[in-house]
Amino acid sequence: MSNTFGKNLKITIFGESHSKSIGVVIDGIPAGTSINFEKIKNEMNRRRPSKNKISTSRYEADEVDIQSGVFNGKTTGASLCGIIKNENTESKDYSNLINNMRPSHSDFPSKIKYKGFNDYRGGGQFSGRLTAPIVFAGAIAKQILEKKNIYIGSHIYSIKDIKDKEFNELNIKLELFNKLLKEEIPTINKNISDDMRNEIEKYKKEGDSVGGIVEAAIINLPVGLGEPLFDSFESRLSHLLFSIPGVKGLEFGKGFEITKMIGSEANDEYYYDNNKNIKTYSNNNGGILGGLTTSMPVIFKVAFKPTPSISKKQRTINIKEKENVEISIEGRHDPCIVPRALVVVEAVSAIVTLDFLLESGIDYE
Amino acid sequence: MSNTFGKNLKITIFGESHSKSIGVVIDGIPAGTSINFEKIKNEMNRRRPSKNKISTSRYEADEVDIQSGVFNGKTTGASLCGIIKNENTESKDYSNLINNMRPSHSDFPSKIKYKGFNDYRGGGQFSGRLTAPIVFAGAIAKQILEKKNIYIGSHIYSIKDIKDKEFNELNIKLELFNKLLKEEIPTINKNISDDMRNEIEKYKKEGDSVGGIVEAAIINLPVGLGEPLFDSFESRLSHLLFSIPGVKGLEFGKGFEITKMIGSEANDEYYYDNNKNIKTYSNNNGGILGGLTTSMPVIFKVAFKPTPSISKKQRTINIKEKENVEISIEGRHDPCIVPRALVVVEAVSAIVTLDFLLESGIDYE
Amino acid sequence: MSNTFGKNLKITIFGESHSKSIGVVIDGIPAGTSINFEKIKNEMNRRRPSKNKISTSRYEADEVDIQSGVFNGKTTGASLCGIIKNENTESKDYSNLINNMRPSHSDFPSKIKYKGFNDYRGGGQFSGRLTAPIVFAGAIAKQILEKKNIYIGSHIYSIKDIKDKEFNELNIKLELFNKLLKEEIPTINKNISDDMRNEIEKYKKEGDSVGGIVEAAIINLPVGLGEPLFDSFESRLSHLLFSIPGVKGLEFGKGFEITKMIGSEANDEYYYDNNKNIKTYSNNNGGILGGLTTSMPVIFKVAFKPTPSISKKQRTINIKEKENVEISIEGRHDPCIVPRALVVVEAVSAIVTLDFLLESGIDYE
Amino acid sequence: MSNTFGKNLKITIFGESHSKSIGVVIDGIPAGTSINFEKIKNEMNRRRPSKNKISTSRYEADEVDIQSGVFNGKTTGASLCGIIKNENTESKDYSNLINNMRPSHSDFPSKIKYKGFNDYRGGGQFSGRLTAPIVFAGAIAKQILEKKNIYIGSHIYSIKDIKDKEFNELNIKLELFNKLLKEEIPTINKNISDDMRNEIEKYKKEGDSVGGIVEAAIINLPVGLGEPLFDSFESRLSHLLFSIPGVKGLEFGKGFEITKMIGSEANDEYYYDNNKNIKTYSNNNGGILGGLTTSMPVIFKVAFKPTPSISKKQRTINIKEKENVEISIEGRHDPCIVPRALVVVEAVSAIVTLDFLLESGIDYE
Repeated sequence: MSNTFGKNLKITIFGESHSKSIGVVIDGIPAGTSINFEKIKNEMNRRRPSKNKISTSRYEADEVDIQSGVFNGKTTGASLCGIIKNENTESKDYSNLINNMRPSHSDFPSKIKYKGFNDYRGGGQFSGRLTAPIVFAGAIAKQILEKKNIYIGSHIYSIKDIKDKEFNELNIKLELFNKLLKEEIPTINKNISDDMRNEIEKYKKEGDSVGGIVEAAIINLPVGLGEPLFDSFESRLSHLLFSIPGVKGLEFGKGFEITKMIGSEANDEYYYDNNKNIKTYSNNNGGILGGLTTSMPVIFKVAFKPTPSISKKQRTINIKEKENVEISIEGRHDPCIVPRALVVVEAVSAIVTLDFLLESGIDYE
Repeated sequence: MSNTFGKNLKITIFGESHSKSIGVVIDGIPAGTSINFEKIKNEMNRRRPSKNKISTSRYEADEVDIQSGVFNGKTTGASLCGIIKNENTESKDYSNLINNMRPSHSDFPSKIKYKGFNDYRGGGQFSGRLTAPIVFAGAIAKQILEKKNIYIGSHIYSIKDIKDKEFNELNIKLELFNKLLKEEIPTINKNISDDMRNEIEKYKKEGDSVGGIVEAAIINLPVGLGEPLFDSFESRLSHLLFSIPGVKGLEFGKGFEITKMIGSEANDEYYYDNNKNIKTYSNNNGGILGGLTTSMPVIFKVAFKPTPSISKKQRTINIKEKENVEISIEGRHDPCIVPRALVVVEAVSAIVTLDFLLESGIDYE
Repeated sequence: MSNTFGKNLKITIFGESHSKSIGVVIDGIPAGTSINFEKIKNEMNRRRPSKNKISTSRYEADEVDIQSGVFNGKTTGASLCGIIKNENTESKDYSNLINNMRPSHSDFPSKIKYKGFNDYRGGGQFSGRLTAPIVFAGAIAKQILEKKNIYIGSHIYSIKDIKDKEFNELNIKLELFNKLLKEEIPTINKNISDDMRNEIEKYKKEGDSVGGIVEAAIINLPVGLGEPLFDSFESRLSHLLFSIPGVKGLEFGKGFEITKMIGSEANDEYYYDNNKNIKTYSNNNGGILGGLTTSMPVIFKVAFKPTPSISKKQRTINIKEKENVEISIEGRHDPCIVPRALVVVEAVSAIVTLDFLLESGIDYE
Repeated sequence: MSNTFGKNLKITIFGESHSKSIGVVIDGIPAGTSINFEKIKNEMNRRRPSKNKISTSRYEADEVDIQSGVFNGKTTGASLCGIIKNENTESKDYSNLINNMRPSHSDFPSKIKYKGFNDYRGGGQFSGRLTAPIVFAGAIAKQILEKKNIYIGSHIYSIKDIKDKEFNELNIKLELFNKLLKEEIPTINKNISDDMRNEIEKYKKEGDSVGGIVEAAIINLPVGLGEPLFDSFESRLSHLLFSIPGVKGLEFGKGFEITKMIGSEANDEYYYDNNKNIKTYSNNNGGILGGLTTSMPVIFKVAFKPTPSISKKQRTINIKEKENVEISIEGRHDPCIVPRALVVVEAVSAIVTLDFLLESGIDYE
């Protein structure tokens, strides 16, 4: 039990990979917010598998059918429920996986936890498909944030060993976010994206998969979002980021690298610029101090593991026969989830940021 | 507002660096649990500044005065409140810091957030001192876990560039945890601890500070602790870890390194051993799949930044005069918080683990 | 924002009177629970308007379409989402009510709260229609409770001045609950139900409405369900009961009458019966002491006001024109909601009871 | 586990009748709120046993020692913890009650729930003494509400069969609240208070006890506080009211009496008065419609049972010997808790109201 998150903006997710539908109930959207359905569709499309070589060929329309909470194009103050039908689920693919535990999937612990009653098809409620309603909720949160001039963007920082540049820690322009949105493999260094694509295709051909790192940023935040201790900006954001399937690491600002710096290097010194605005000479802390935003860009990196579903033969167990077996996972799987994960990372960031913004009592209109 | 965390084991923290006392209310401890006060004291001592050269000279007795919830040495089922007096706080140290914002501290965003009413002395409610009641709560949680044979341990994985070995991902023995407990600079490779100590002392002399990485592990967990989606084991654990002052990064299992592996390397393949126990050949996922424990050791690394309080001169602002100034932070500060942070990392791990264990309905006695 | 309730069994409601659909997400149902769809249908039918003279003529099929959480007839451990389409909503009925505030409805405060953006049709999210998904959730909770031999029943204690007998406070038989289930106007004293029906019809003819009191009971509860202080059995149950539209009063056991008794009369004295079972000579406290169940029947009465929608002319305001006007509420409205409210009272009682039962760690299978 | 309540204003209670201390952690008080300590003391005194004949002779200083959250007389934004020492607890009084279950107390169900480990002295965590920290929290909430011109008052509506007048449902003046504050037996009809006092004394002499009804009101509320469905104003208020020991009934507005009215009588019709203010001709709904405040006075009645502790002989069980016994409860007990309960009812009302007010985003300064 864990499908509800948030305080002022509360989201409740339901669904399984092969259930009739999946969806989300969003509570706390201020009444009178106009919804841009085109923008929602764009975000949903960013998560959908594309038709190129580097993605699964499974077709998902992912059209969100809004059930409640919107009247005459504006929110009513009631819970907004959006539902996405599960179509084209090809349940037959999974019948042989009831007892053969896919390595690095949730199959084994969930079978034990739910005493065998979990819906094993496609990973059930552990499926990456559950990120679709999250993207929907995020798309709405983003729209509300944008009215307050707050923007969220991301790029692929790395695929396996191939690395992009980092965001400029002191100054990230909205234009960059908009450029990144147009790319299939969004990178700051445009020259690197073909290398990344080739790397993904190479391992796809081998029936294998690769991982990578997403770098994301939130700009134009007011000072003081977040709470001390248990609801630090990092705490709540990490909570949701580690809910995304495949995430194994997270760092804010310089992250693990900051452990190699000394205090006088790591500290972000303040100054008044010529316009008497408060700035820092560096942003090693990624825009957050003591759990509160500083108004500098919030920047963080999220590590995604290689897709566990690979067609290469793997050793595993048959839990019914209690014997060692081999498995080859057929079906339509992404050789790399990173390109589709960007919008999910942005979505949870938008959800957490809006929740804090509503908490702050800042007028959202 | 954010000082309560947990579902079945709920902790509520109060206090500020220079308030009369700090403390914690713990709700959800099963009635009839015997409390080992000696063990609590040992844990509190691990967090206290030691008297050697590498730690602050500030004296903190940190004796916990239990107010409620214990009767005849056993828990009653009522909320357990533990209070620690703030003594020897030397408020005078901080008077000049009302308007000079210490770099990389919460001073600036908290002054804005609380409109200048926050207690600026010693960082107020953002102080690392608030980890004392967390260690107390963790010490109790640990005792209950140990009755179920679940143990938590940690070592200093790195100080600046000096690295220890990693935990053996497949098999961590309780003996190792016990050995580490006895060391001031707990490392697996004993030869490296003097280098670490020297590194800390070196930068202390320079009026500077260093950071480092803590590696922690939880062993003997049952299969299936954790929840899908928003209450994954990683989500809740990360939530509390990022509440610890100074944490900037977190990775489970191979973490960021797993992004450089391909699926067939990264996947943890299962097998039945000779005793028909289910095991994996590797543990790149750090004992968690789909947010659920797999029974393999849960292993994670936590990055701590260098202590922001340094006596070296730094540039900053005076927020009242709206001018650029210089600051040198006097007082008794740790040149490195990592050695004292180990027990805090273990404490929040114990709190989260016990919460999940109570959720699971496993009999805790 | 308020559409989620519960701790171990969490329900999240969405929908409005005239939205596309209404529904509920139920989190926390143990995996492997078999669902009896026939029983669900029976409960839904108890809430539906019947076709006799004393109920609204609005047709509501109220078929619940389960989206997730059930696989092969058993729960999977994932969130169970049930959806009910809103059909036959005749929105035209409400167009003239945009600015004319119906007396004793939520129209006025909700229009202010949501700045005019709330869906005014049929009361929007304040509609009694939202009790349909609650009844669905309750029907599932009831099934699980029945496997533990816990039963919930209710009868109409009064309609206006016409009173039924009270439940026997010391011993309520399941047979009585089963008998009551079969009646359209369920009363213990069978002779009284025709009087009640006549009273309702009489005021219906006059374009007016009547209220009444529901008495409900929960039998065979274990000792000790509930928590001290803020989660007393009464606290959580009252929380949900006062969420039901139209409820204005609640009393447990003797309720307001107990204030007229002296301590030696009011106290429920204990004794061991011949089989060494612990019993009480009376049950003035309604089966709850200190917020905990005692194993005696939990008994309580719930006061429902007369339906506010009446066709009789009433004085009110037009909030746009800022003038006093008259209003006559046309449409299909119940002259008395009490007969349809019984199953709603039982549903929230089942939800709260199951939540506490899961909390208690009692094996639910 | 249940000692935390609230969303924007969160209170966490700890302590037991005979623990070292009892207290409360209050989270969410806006920073910069000045605290009037005199007013807190006055409220604490209202709950304390007085020295006349109608109250217990147990001496309780009930001085609140604030640990944190206040600096230079104003709140800092950190959690405010207030502690009250338990002195003069005379534990010996209770030793003979370990196994003899006091009728209508929590002794029996709590002994079962906590497997005998609960602190049986004075009712442990079920003690009415736990209302002291609630009154403290309420006293702070009241001060903040008063700055917004919102006031809460109450009187004794009845002691046994002796009844006071009701509040004027349409218009309650602050002057009346202030007058009531000065009385030991606060009634609207001054002539009735002596009768009430005599009634209490009469039953005290007989070693018995009496109950009664508190009527309370909240005035000058804005329109629209509360939430639809599960967080209706009534839901949250009832949740806390039923947490007060001894409460067995609650009604808003006309409450149970409204069930005897017909719709055209019960409905509160609106009109614009000469100043174009929106008013209602009646206030049968007690100032709440659809769970939202209407700006009319919120009025409710709370039924308190007779004090269960009486010195008269009662029949009960010895749970160790499994035999029927007799019990006479010695010690210092109130023959009627109603006079001391008024301030507790007001306190929880203030806590709930302030929580909703903070939710509403209305500027609280």
